[in-house]
Amino acid sequence: MKDCEWIVTQDPQRRVLRNASVRINDGRIEEVGRATSAAKDEVIDCRKKVLIPGLINTHTHLSMSLFRGYADDLELREWLEKKIWPLEARLTGEMCYHGALLGSLEMTRTGTTCFVDMYFHMEDVARAVNEAGLRAILSPGMIDKPEKVGTEQERQTTLKFLEYIHKLHNPLINFAVGPHAPYTCGPETLLWARDIAERENALVNIHIAETRGEQAQFEKDGKGRVAEYLDKIGFLNNRVLAAHGVWLTKSEVRLFGKKGVRVAHCPVSNMKLASGGTAPVPEMLDAGVSVGLGTDGAASNNGLDMFDTMKMTALVHKNSRWDPTVMNAQQVLDMATLGGARCIGREKDLGSVEVGKQADIVLLDLRDPNLIPIHQKETVVSDLVYSANGQNVDTTIVDGRPLMINRKLKALDPEKIGEEVRSSIARLIPQ
Amino acid sequence: MKDCEWIVTQDPQRRVLRNASVRINDGRIEEVGRATSAAKDEVIDCRKKVLIPGLINTHTHLSMSLFRGYADDLELREWLEKKIWPLEARLTGEMCYHGALLGSLEMTRTGTTCFVDMYFHMEDVARAVNEAGLRAILSPGMIDKPEKVGTEQERQTTLKFLEYIHKLHNPLINFAVGPHAPYTCGPETLLWARDIAERENALVNIHIAETRGEQAQFEKDGKGRVAEYLDKIGFLNNRVLAAHGVWLTKSEVRLFGKKGVRVAHCPVSNMKLASGGTAPVPEMLDAGVSVGLGTDGAASNNGLDMFDTMKMTALVHKNSRWDPTVMNAQQVLDMATLGGARCIGREKDLGSVEVGKQADIVLLDLRDPNLIPIHQKETVVSDLVYSANGQNVDTTIVDGRPLMINRKLKALDPEKIGEEVRSSIARLIPQ
Repeated sequence: MKDCEWIVTQDPQRRVLRNASVRINDGRIEEVGRATSAAKDEVIDCRKKVLIPGLINTHTHLSMSLFRGYADDLELREWLEKKIWPLEARLTGEMCYHGALLGSLEMTRTGTTCFVDMYFHMEDVARAVNEAGLRAILSPGMIDKPEKVGTEQERQTTLKFLEYIHKLHNPLINFAVGPHAPYTCGPETLLWARDIAERENALVNIHIAETRGEQAQFEKDGKGRVAEYLDKIGFLNNRVLAAHGVWLTKSEVRLFGKKGVRVAHCPVSNMKLASGGTAPVPEMLDAGVSVGLGTDGAASNNGLDMFDTMKMTALVHKNSRWDPTVMNAQQVLDMATLGGARCIGREKDLGSVEVGKQADIVLLDLRDPNLIPIHQKETVVSDLVYSANGQNVDTTIVDGRPLMINRKLKALDPEKIGEEVRSSIARLIPQ
Repeated sequence: MKDCEWIVTQDPQRRVLRNASVRINDGRIEEVGRATSAAKDEVIDCRKKVLIPGLINTHTHLSMSLFRGYADDLELREWLEKKIWPLEARLTGEMCYHGALLGSLEMTRTGTTCFVDMYFHMEDVARAVNEAGLRAILSPGMIDKPEKVGTEQERQTTLKFLEYIHKLHNPLINFAVGPHAPYTCGPETLLWARDIAERENALVNIHIAETRGEQAQFEKDGKGRVAEYLDKIGFLNNRVLAAHGVWLTKSEVRLFGKKGVRVAHCPVSNMKLASGGTAPVPEMLDAGVSVGLGTDGAASNNGLDMFDTMKMTALVHKNSRWDPTVMNAQQVLDMATLGGARCIGREKDLGSVEVGKQADIVLLDLRDPNLIPIHQKETVVSDLVYSANGQNVDTTIVDGRPLMINRKLKALDPEKIGEEVRSSIARLIPQ
């Protein structure tokens, strides 16, 4: 690479380097700083750019990009029951494939290199992500059915998907078990998920304590606090990635810390659906909980731009605590990179720009007016969190492979994706 | 124009037109719908685009774009006293000119066509805005000085600037009086400002009830509630544009409604500086107060993107009220367009795409992945508020004059502006 103006390493010292570069070989970072290059190397011109680790989106429903803007300003229950679920019942695998390509396109465009997803038709999602070249952990969402046979089918779908991932032989794509939530899955399903995750050395991707309604229902049913209930049945351990975690008490936060439960914080979705309050993230960090950031699906966000989520994270906590020093820029960028890596148990090879780590790397164009000026080394991180947005990203590299260079997409065809999405929508929602 | 995919008119029926176009002549909109064009007309290709009224930013400090990212995650007082004020003391007119060009560039780039500004060295700001081709209302900020002579100088600066604006003969640029705030200006200055505004048929641009500290100090000083105090001295009337209005009681909101005081709601800045709580905007709308949206200066935002502010507006109110139906997309877009026009007393010729109104118009590119899909006529407004961002803007027209077409800037030179800003910064903050 020709020298970057800045490299935000996110290494243990949180060094920010000026006029530096990175050498990548065989998917890994080989040199950071004054990197040398051989004649045969491909060289990317990084002048007037800032280089950062690829962002990690710890909670998405990629194919829901199809529903972007379809139903806004509604109560969660009405949103789900009247709008989203009826559409989902008509979704085909082919539609999910196109929705996942659209989501992958937006992620590539906005600097996300790795994400954790839960949805239906996950083989079709995996097919799209495989084409897109992104790194992902994919889980078919499981919901208990009234009939036992339906619940059994959900498990078979998960096991079949696991087999599909094994056969895909793409080291960038991994499997997770995905029991949807404690209010949609009984203890049997939850413990089945726990056991499969143990056997497969995989994550358990689940929604926990998203809304006050969920907690209120648990109390009405005599099951008490959601998180305590999950602990009592033996579900909580360090494979669990809990999305949301809005409605947790301080003692439940400490329980998460003790059990090693990780949290995907999704502030934009929580605010838009008015899940109530603000997740106790400062308490989570104090309790040693690994916290990453998630956009949630585009239907409740309405996008997958992690820069938007970073800014919202910093702002919502300052606002709810009347304290502008809470959730500073470095903490927020940490969650979007290293925290995300810890959430998926990959802190040893993802989340920072260090020798030996996977080359998941993003460049932002410092000529864009909203990134002028950059004052000094000490303010670059702040500029990333408060001033940047996903559209400033001009280069996205995953595992050493450029998916976009200078805003030119290498793996995906935006025009074709747009057309296929529009035709999927036309079949899904006849006008 | 070749037909737009959509036109969001913001007319009284809030019509959204499909496959329609607009004819502009002599700075005004002459036809909306199936507009005809003569052979000599310049035709802009609007296929795969959505056309909206230009956004109106009702509260900025344009030249503070120089300080973007310079001092984040700080308490307001520390931020002002240790970081911002020392820099401002060293600012020259030339620096403010370059800062204002940078701000104008970002506004043009992100679809703002009109704004209300307060700062120092306003002649230099006016010079920049004049070059940029934007519509603006500019006010030199007035702060009472310990010595009477200093306070008198502030008034002279305002009157000199008023004369400058008269001589500039640019119908797009207007003057406002700018007493900074009730805690920095005594009653004499406030009433002087009121009288000048009356004489010049101008706005009074002022910060009111931004922080709890301001209100607490008023109570300590025996002056009671800020807004009631302003009424008691005879300051409040329908020329007053009050920025922030966070710390208002319901009865003060009603007072604003009764007196015709307008409010510039700046949620991003309020959240970032943790001004506390959330401005009672739903109550303001109920009380008939004209409410517009503002970004505030880039130093406390950190940008001037009104799309970011629209999304934040919708989200922060839903979050603080635990109600996802509060501040729906149409209300938010209304504030960013028609509400802004009302705030500056220009609702008759700004804020919507209607025959006879000024041609302040913005186009967004619907091929950008975050704007795919658009479901139906009924969801376009929601897509603008929740899914779009300023970087989707590809064409900005003010008073019929294109300032940017297909992301190509017509009036400003981004590279030159970037260089001049960097050199201003180097003089302002020696490393």
